[in-house]
Amino acid sequence: MITHDRPVHFEDVDAAGIVFFARFFAYCHDAMERFFDDVEGGYVNLITVRKIGFPAVHASSDFKAPIAYGDVARIEGTVTKLGNTAAHFRFLMTRARDGALVATMNHVHVCTDIRTMTKLAFPSDVRASLEKHLV
Amino acid sequence: MITHDRPVHFEDVDAAGIVFFARFFAYCHDAMERFFDDVEGGYVNLITVRKIGFPAVHASSDFKAPIAYGDVARIEGTVTKLGNTAAHFRFLMTRARDGALVATMNHVHVCTDIRTMTKLAFPSDVRASLEKHLV
Amino acid sequence: MITHDRPVHFEDVDAAGIVFFARFFAYCHDAMERFFDDVEGGYVNLITVRKIGFPAVHASSDFKAPIAYGDVARIEGTVTKLGNTAAHFRFLMTRARDGALVATMNHVHVCTDIRTMTKLAFPSDVRASLEKHLV
Amino acid sequence: MITHDRPVHFEDVDAAGIVFFARFFAYCHDAMERFFDDVEGGYVNLITVRKIGFPAVHASSDFKAPIAYGDVARIEGTVTKLGNTAAHFRFLMTRARDGALVATMNHVHVCTDIRTMTKLAFPSDVRASLEKHLV
Repeated sequence: MITHDRPVHFEDVDAAGIVFFARFFAYCHDAMERFFDDVEGGYVNLITVRKIGFPAVHASSDFKAPIAYGDVARIEGTVTKLGNTAAHFRFLMTRARDGALVATMNHVHVCTDIRTMTKLAFPSDVRASLEKHLV
Repeated sequence: MITHDRPVHFEDVDAAGIVFFARFFAYCHDAMERFFDDVEGGYVNLITVRKIGFPAVHASSDFKAPIAYGDVARIEGTVTKLGNTAAHFRFLMTRARDGALVATMNHVHVCTDIRTMTKLAFPSDVRASLEKHLV
Repeated sequence: MITHDRPVHFEDVDAAGIVFFARFFAYCHDAMERFFDDVEGGYVNLITVRKIGFPAVHASSDFKAPIAYGDVARIEGTVTKLGNTAAHFRFLMTRARDGALVATMNHVHVCTDIRTMTKLAFPSDVRASLEKHLV
Repeated sequence: MITHDRPVHFEDVDAAGIVFFARFFAYCHDAMERFFDDVEGGYVNLITVRKIGFPAVHASSDFKAPIAYGDVARIEGTVTKLGNTAAHFRFLMTRARDGALVATMNHVHVCTDIRTMTKLAFPSDVRASLEKHLV
């Protein structure tokens, strides 16, 4: 399991005064990068040097409570399924100050050669890093 | 049904060179505002004057093809269910240049008093505007 | 001179309820792309096919009045100086509903090979397109 | 002087593959909030409880080197002038991995009642916090 704290930035809210719903997905993407920390150079190296990316093929979220500027989103993430080319991630987001459940999210990302945008079997080091968080 | 064309902006891509997945949800939110066009002053007036907002309680997307800078996302949206306080929206996103399916999305938004963040039954003018797009 | 209308998006505001100051620069970048409309395929083709970009080397803005969700930013842009590799742009942003001056901005962008990130003399078609807006 | 490290996020780049110039201003805004750390509750409390904000009236940047995904922007900020209602900030941004100068920025922000959007003399605790960083 990975844990990631993301303070709400001044510009993350919308005209209703709460964090814009689309940004929750970006928050989870930040957290997702932690799953790759055991790969040498991490997610950054995969993207920029090895040209291996993980585009989303599915993302869903149930929003339970709003968060606003001043809050910290606490994200816990696990890998729930690991196929040959696809990884299923589950995120639980709570509000750090009181533990209130903010959102639950399920994402499916596919290992991809980003030069050709074609699927790729997980390289063994990537698989090993993800397996550590498999539940 | 509403239709909304959204050109990909220069800054909408990510380090993999394609539109960042979280932005698809923002694109659909732009389209969603069109459902409220029959309300006087539109979505803007609801938010800024009447203080009625529509936070998402659920959002899901299946991503079928990437889009990049230079593409135009064409979004068709319908209302699939209309309860007392919740509206279900369905969006179909295609790539304008070739009609390729980019994503299908289902969002559920709840009518809310944004001063108190409590649920609100749809005002009759809002309901009437949404019903025009109900399928 | 180019003119570009940009409605404030729902997510463009900040926790103070007005358009976040950094976004004004993005609004002007959208407008800036219009200077290249006489180039075949426009700014998009320059970036994605010819790999010619125009990173900013200077950007400054004086902010005169805030804008909020519901406003439309009207941007008028001119080219104020055209060197061998650098172009100076000036933008005047007003609020469409009442003509109030919102901001004046001066940007300097340099013609660049984005594969090597080295300066490039303006290709003749790019220069011709920019010269049309030179004052 | 405040120091703030900001890793480039996956979605901060543009279609030219480098951090979008408008985002540098947002990076500096994150850093700017540190100037208010001696105020009880910090910048967050000023905005959300006391309804005191600091809209920019001027922002300028000279960009010296691009940064990309994988880089960390290191920002050093000082207060260069403190008037009755306006504060002048200077930021120096370097690339953490090699110390290369990325940008120098000068911002002027005005103390403002964000309910009425009118100027406000700095409250004494705000002035005291800013004075610590005055050079």
